[in-house]
Amino acid sequence: MQKFIFILSLLLVTSSTLFAQQNIFAPTGPISSPIVNKDGSVTLHLQAPTATHVEVKGDWLPAGTTVPMTKNTDGVWSYTSGPLASDLYIYQFIVNGTALLDPLNVYQIRDVSSLFSIFVIEGGQGDLYQVQEVPHGTVAKRWYHSPTLDMTRRLTIYTPPGYETSNESYPVLYLLHGMGGDEEAWPTLGRTAQILDNLIATGKCKPMLVVMPNGNVAQEAAPGESSLNQTPVNFNLPHTMDGTYENSFEDIIAFIEGNYRAKANKENRAIAGLSMGGFHSLWISANYPNTFGYVGHFSGAVNPRENNDLSQGVPRIYENMDGKLAQQRDNGLILYWIAIGTDDFLYQEVKDYRAKLDSLQFPYQYVETAKGHVWSNWRLYLSQFTPLLFK
Amino acid sequence: MQKFIFILSLLLVTSSTLFAQQNIFAPTGPISSPIVNKDGSVTLHLQAPTATHVEVKGDWLPAGTTVPMTKNTDGVWSYTSGPLASDLYIYQFIVNGTALLDPLNVYQIRDVSSLFSIFVIEGGQGDLYQVQEVPHGTVAKRWYHSPTLDMTRRLTIYTPPGYETSNESYPVLYLLHGMGGDEEAWPTLGRTAQILDNLIATGKCKPMLVVMPNGNVAQEAAPGESSLNQTPVNFNLPHTMDGTYENSFEDIIAFIEGNYRAKANKENRAIAGLSMGGFHSLWISANYPNTFGYVGHFSGAVNPRENNDLSQGVPRIYENMDGKLAQQRDNGLILYWIAIGTDDFLYQEVKDYRAKLDSLQFPYQYVETAKGHVWSNWRLYLSQFTPLLFK
Repeated sequence: MQKFIFILSLLLVTSSTLFAQQNIFAPTGPISSPIVNKDGSVTLHLQAPTATHVEVKGDWLPAGTTVPMTKNTDGVWSYTSGPLASDLYIYQFIVNGTALLDPLNVYQIRDVSSLFSIFVIEGGQGDLYQVQEVPHGTVAKRWYHSPTLDMTRRLTIYTPPGYETSNESYPVLYLLHGMGGDEEAWPTLGRTAQILDNLIATGKCKPMLVVMPNGNVAQEAAPGESSLNQTPVNFNLPHTMDGTYENSFEDIIAFIEGNYRAKANKENRAIAGLSMGGFHSLWISANYPNTFGYVGHFSGAVNPRENNDLSQGVPRIYENMDGKLAQQRDNGLILYWIAIGTDDFLYQEVKDYRAKLDSLQFPYQYVETAKGHVWSNWRLYLSQFTPLLFK
Repeated sequence: MQKFIFILSLLLVTSSTLFAQQNIFAPTGPISSPIVNKDGSVTLHLQAPTATHVEVKGDWLPAGTTVPMTKNTDGVWSYTSGPLASDLYIYQFIVNGTALLDPLNVYQIRDVSSLFSIFVIEGGQGDLYQVQEVPHGTVAKRWYHSPTLDMTRRLTIYTPPGYETSNESYPVLYLLHGMGGDEEAWPTLGRTAQILDNLIATGKCKPMLVVMPNGNVAQEAAPGESSLNQTPVNFNLPHTMDGTYENSFEDIIAFIEGNYRAKANKENRAIAGLSMGGFHSLWISANYPNTFGYVGHFSGAVNPRENNDLSQGVPRIYENMDGKLAQQRDNGLILYWIAIGTDDFLYQEVKDYRAKLDSLQFPYQYVETAKGHVWSNWRLYLSQFTPLLFK
């Protein structure tokens, strides 16, 4: 064996910068970044000898703030946070005014039109966001036809461990993204597969299908994944909150129930969404009142308009909120779950919406957390909401 | 309708930097990058007023070279290439010595341990790498158990349009990555789903399953997707070319044929790989001589060792190349396809291997292209190889 290993090693050493994939050079060197320290703090490094001003922007810092990095004599800038709660965090460096990813960190995620470097602090909630040695579900990118929209569209679907080899049918959670998001948002920043795998493995959550559609009817699929290809990412897409998506949602349900072993009744359907996805969940569940037994609003843009009427040009789907909610209440719901952070800019809107529900004697569960309109909360809410489903 | 739209617009305008997803700010401004020009050239921009030296590194440039960008009076650096052949290209900026992604371009791909910004020049081969308005297959990330390795491992599988709704069985292409790669390499840089969707839509290629396993037995899954989570990406993984993977490959075939409607005979199995994946394809097909009717080596590390014998410590799977090839020849193969670029550092190795095949009167097809050990060639080879399969 010795000789054979020697030959292979020689081959590797002499050609290691060329061999196999096109680019084989690890960003190694005297520094690395990020470094998660034993006390739960993180140290970030950036080699930028000629920069004059380097800051860190990260979601463990107060919104809208940055912290300066300090430069050592080798031209390496560094920053160490205080101990951080266990979570997934995103950050960028701002080098002489330009926001950049950490060039030493290969792990990053797109959030709408920006890329962020990421790291996870383990030892608590963050462990749910990591891949553990547990049975894993399948994550598929699937295209379906929407007759209502006359479009072929893309969604992400999580099927739980064992789905493919069992004959069972499963309950379904429809999980909706926020404005600017798409069918990639929940699977990446939302860590849906990791959270579900980990909660199912410990028996905290029932095996279920999780359907993450694209909620922007102006696009077939996420940026880069549609026939628009690499157009700039546009936050202000048309028709995001004009009833078009809600009206076409039956196409998604029909597709899932026609193509997956999905339990097709109210007791086995849940719908939840973050921000705009909460708005969509509200109106979809209110307009299909006996379709969903479980509804979740995560920092929902619940927008409690008062009894809009068609004569003012309101789409029919947004008409008569009170009447529709009363009908939904009377039909019976298993769980109507509302969560928001105290720093969320939608806090008052959600408070007003709860007052409306109270006045209608509409039963709901309410969860209030710290922080604002951030993925840290949405991952947390997903991990809190899914254990309540389909019991 | 007017009033309703007005209310929504107001809501959007006042909260557009906060609303919905956590980060809603498009990297817009007076400049954009990349800009693909009508003549097929690309213009790149970077705002870096305090930088003193900015270069572009891109795979349309000669290997190992960079080109300087020029700075205008506003502190914006720019570069325009000459007209480029239609293809997908990767690039980075090197700002005062530090390699960075283009902060104005949200589209990027990881290659081993480096991230690159990307763009596509349309109007030719590059069109195959874009999403077109054609029926789309499904891309799934699936975990399987390997009894031989006693590991649960991850693979990517492409199922063609219509797979889920037909009762047909399909032929299977096993498509292997190179050293440092993983089950994410072919679906991202390799554009497998786009190439297959587009070739199937025009009838140039038969509908088939494409299985893209992780070929590193030292890891369960791609970086960030295994229980190792965000460890640094390690190019020099152990056991990549010591026979362990080849020996366990039957587990992958058994999983696919046990869990998908796969045609389970030699006429409907193909195996191909790039670089190290070519080495794997060679030895897997030679050691399972009546299993694969089609074999492809894309810039293969074919490594024609002469009749290694076990007494010198060679793993049994690498023993007796000539005898195994002769057996493979006698059993009959439908296609043995070899492609390499004239600038590839493995060019001579492949030439020696062809000489061996010639001496054995082993039939094969040989394709020689320009360029070297690059994804541009591997995408091209995939688009040339798949139309030859299962006819």
